[in-house]
Amino acid sequence: MSQAHAFFETHQSTLLQADAANRSREFWSPYPEAPSGRVYGENAAVDGESRFQGYLGKPFELAGIGALGEVAEEVSPYGIDLGVRYQRPDTEALITRMQDAMGAWREAGPDLRAGVCLEILHRLNRRSFEMAHAVMHTTGQGFVMAFQAGGPHAQDRGLEAVAQTWSAMKAVPDTARWVKPQGKNPPITLDKRFHIVPRGIGLVVACATFPTWNTYPGLFASLVAGNPVLVKPHPGAVLPLAISVQVAQQVLAEAGFDPCLVSLVPDSRAEPVTRSLAQHPAVRLIDFTGSSAFGDWLEANCPQAEVFTEKAGVNCLIIDSVDSMKAVARNLSMSLSLYSGQMCTTPQAIYIPRDGIDSAEGRLGFDDVAEQLAGSIEKFTSNTEVAVHVLGAIQSEETRARIEASASLGEVVLPSRALVHPEYPAARIRTPLLLKVDAADIDAYGEERFGPISFLVATDDTDHSLALAQQVIAGKGAITLGVYSTDEAVLDKAEALAIDARVALSCNFTGGFLVNQSAAFGDFHATGGNPAANASLTDSAFVSRRFVVVQSRREVAAPQA
Amino acid sequence: MSQAHAFFETHQSTLLQADAANRSREFWSPYPEAPSGRVYGENAAVDGESRFQGYLGKPFELAGIGALGEVAEEVSPYGIDLGVRYQRPDTEALITRMQDAMGAWREAGPDLRAGVCLEILHRLNRRSFEMAHAVMHTTGQGFVMAFQAGGPHAQDRGLEAVAQTWSAMKAVPDTARWVKPQGKNPPITLDKRFHIVPRGIGLVVACATFPTWNTYPGLFASLVAGNPVLVKPHPGAVLPLAISVQVAQQVLAEAGFDPCLVSLVPDSRAEPVTRSLAQHPAVRLIDFTGSSAFGDWLEANCPQAEVFTEKAGVNCLIIDSVDSMKAVARNLSMSLSLYSGQMCTTPQAIYIPRDGIDSAEGRLGFDDVAEQLAGSIEKFTSNTEVAVHVLGAIQSEETRARIEASASLGEVVLPSRALVHPEYPAARIRTPLLLKVDAADIDAYGEERFGPISFLVATDDTDHSLALAQQVIAGKGAITLGVYSTDEAVLDKAEALAIDARVALSCNFTGGFLVNQSAAFGDFHATGGNPAANASLTDSAFVSRRFVVVQSRREVAAPQA
Repeated sequence: MSQAHAFFETHQSTLLQADAANRSREFWSPYPEAPSGRVYGENAAVDGESRFQGYLGKPFELAGIGALGEVAEEVSPYGIDLGVRYQRPDTEALITRMQDAMGAWREAGPDLRAGVCLEILHRLNRRSFEMAHAVMHTTGQGFVMAFQAGGPHAQDRGLEAVAQTWSAMKAVPDTARWVKPQGKNPPITLDKRFHIVPRGIGLVVACATFPTWNTYPGLFASLVAGNPVLVKPHPGAVLPLAISVQVAQQVLAEAGFDPCLVSLVPDSRAEPVTRSLAQHPAVRLIDFTGSSAFGDWLEANCPQAEVFTEKAGVNCLIIDSVDSMKAVARNLSMSLSLYSGQMCTTPQAIYIPRDGIDSAEGRLGFDDVAEQLAGSIEKFTSNTEVAVHVLGAIQSEETRARIEASASLGEVVLPSRALVHPEYPAARIRTPLLLKVDAADIDAYGEERFGPISFLVATDDTDHSLALAQQVIAGKGAITLGVYSTDEAVLDKAEALAIDARVALSCNFTGGFLVNQSAAFGDFHATGGNPAANASLTDSAFVSRRFVVVQSRREVAAPQA
Repeated sequence: MSQAHAFFETHQSTLLQADAANRSREFWSPYPEAPSGRVYGENAAVDGESRFQGYLGKPFELAGIGALGEVAEEVSPYGIDLGVRYQRPDTEALITRMQDAMGAWREAGPDLRAGVCLEILHRLNRRSFEMAHAVMHTTGQGFVMAFQAGGPHAQDRGLEAVAQTWSAMKAVPDTARWVKPQGKNPPITLDKRFHIVPRGIGLVVACATFPTWNTYPGLFASLVAGNPVLVKPHPGAVLPLAISVQVAQQVLAEAGFDPCLVSLVPDSRAEPVTRSLAQHPAVRLIDFTGSSAFGDWLEANCPQAEVFTEKAGVNCLIIDSVDSMKAVARNLSMSLSLYSGQMCTTPQAIYIPRDGIDSAEGRLGFDDVAEQLAGSIEKFTSNTEVAVHVLGAIQSEETRARIEASASLGEVVLPSRALVHPEYPAARIRTPLLLKVDAADIDAYGEERFGPISFLVATDDTDHSLALAQQVIAGKGAITLGVYSTDEAVLDKAEALAIDARVALSCNFTGGFLVNQSAAFGDFHATGGNPAANASLTDSAFVSRRFVVVQSRREVAAPQA
């Protein structure tokens, strides 16, 4: 039995469970999210950190072709200069090699390719502590979040994509005998073969805030469908993807395939390579997470490729009425604080009737609502030692500057403060900025302000809130819509709005789960139906365009009478 | 029980069988292809013809909005002026009405929409004789072909698309309870709903040669996914689609929906509407069959829509070696004669080694092969009474002129002759033109020459034939590739070429089945992976982009301890 067969046998039951979870959409995950020695082994935490430390200031070894010099631009948002050096490959030579390697990878078929992909994910899972440090010190996420979102949750998303793609490929039989009756004459009989044929080379363009979570779906969906994949990291967040590519290359090589089927193409801010790669005739699939401007450019200018984008948006949240404003404020304060609002799912525009809302404790004015929310954030962030682990650090200097610049966009309800991290005094840490604006100030709250910047928008009433949210989402897109209401009629209107605007809705979250959170197998992330994204993680449209079916037919001679 | 429920109950077993056939890809069809009174009823033939006659010279009645005048440009290729008059709707008002109607259609859900679609197809099937006359006298197809390709086979393609789309929608559950364990704490429990949400208005742009067969897949896939559909017929082939839209409107109205959910938008050659409709912001899906120039324009200029195209190509056929050249010639002569080569699947470039081929009867020179093929066509077409029913008529004056103009592109092996139809003396009937060219004359055989125009291309050897086919298909696209060889190694090379060029392959057809033929449920028509088409009938990518999934989540309170 080949190594690839062995990987498939080892992971077949995980694959089938993932397929079942994709269909039931019930909770399931094979990758434990607890950063715990009991789960990952007593030495996992220490080993992971030491492996991370071992990368710093050194060249990172990967299979590749040629070298056009090195790049090394990563600086931790916690103030450490990482100094990891990555080779820039000769992309023309690399693409030729990947094309040569594609035949054997295609011929391996869906099962063996899935086996290889699941082994890659399994090994990435075992290295989740190391990944956590790499993600933390590139994205700025707090350690636990970096562990979970960068490790097991990203692995879940990768597995979800593998299972969804595998299932789409397996829906086409390998062969069929087609027998068409011809009345009294012998039937027409054709033997058919159906080949799953990859599109070509895939390019996955990563972002700096979720380098693995947002990259694994496209990477693994393309790879399991038979496409070689170029991984283009953000210059500021290379290490998590370098580790991912290294693991993929090791597994591919062990299974007898060219490790370059998954290759890293790092670039520098001064010499970006994405545009030319994206328009390369051999590149037939592009997955992108990042700005709307660049995502729109990719969609319009790469006709040779299938393009999947997740771009910017303005997430909206509507407060109509509540049981306990305290519970709402507690939940929302965590939504706004988690990773300092640097999630593509964080609410930005929060619509509240200007004459207030009903609650179980009586009527609350607009300012009461604002005060309770601000108070809840203030209370949470006042405990610096706890808060820094939730807030994490601000990934980029641009985002930090945006917080300052945004303070003039409305009346400051809660100013953003700098916190000093007890372990990393140079860390770029900021608490959420809360602004009060009027519904008319749509230029302020109706543009994406990436980072811990949120607007409390005073509206005429909830119908006005709904109409504004609809307008903003239709124009700018959104990945999340939240609503708080004790009135079923309002919840129905919100559901109708979500359907109309094609945005995911979360209702009345007051417990431990946040509107920001999106779990593989259970949640579709983005719908692909509004300007924030043209694709959804992970629906059938996301996977089925990554391969075509080529059939062949042979006549079967009628038996002699 | 509502009428839509009743339709679903009536047709549920047909739907499930169609779904099973899509998966097994074995032969299946619920719509008998024999134009027989025993199947369709004793009076079906007479009634169908009389209904067709009843349309001539009169206005055609459809539900619609406003009227910007009439169009009536259909002239039968058999020489009859049809004179059917169609209202041009006020498209802006129509689009507004269709958008208003979309909500109720969406809310009906996949099952009821599938029930309505299957009832439409069922009624179309009962009217196959009427449809046969409409298709014959617009496309020029012979009566039996017009019956089969315009009726049951088109209905099969529509049903295939309904079942494939329905299955993709049903793969997403309506609801799920998501329970995430939290160690010793109560789990996080979310109740989720998943809505299938249509993209928006679909536009189906039909061609003049297969107005139903090439239109039903996009029409029914969009409709069953919840999208209203504008049907834009070719000005020369409106009637088959007017009848189709009329049937759809009747069934929609009976089921309580706005009949305008399926609407006809006929135009004239002088005042075409396709470009402006295709760029209308409300149009979110476009299905097109026609020229490469216009298909490429749609792909590049309608960023608001998902665009599915079937365009031109150069179908290739390779003759390497044969058992019986007589059997090959008989099969190929039918391929080239059927509907006078006006199929998107007819071979155009036939590659033969210049020093000949092996056969069971000994070595045959290039000219022997050419002579046998020409002789077989000549023999078949010499029986005018039989031949006209297979050849049909030339649909357009442009195609007729192209036959004449093409005679100078090579050495004429078999000239195209005009035949006189015994019933329709003015019919535009031509026999196939066969030309001999050299491999170097790629400008002649390597461009699509739509119509009964084929090239016998003299090559150095079969490897050269394979290389030329690969070059032509990579550059111009193809829907079919054929090969004749008694050598398994050559068949393997052809299979590898098919995979590489992403084109469907047919091997050694000598019996009653032709390389031209593509059957729903069994055959994928086009791969979507070469320049001839960006979509495939009917794979998962063809259907899954016609809707998005919108989810909503509600927290379920933990039970009190």
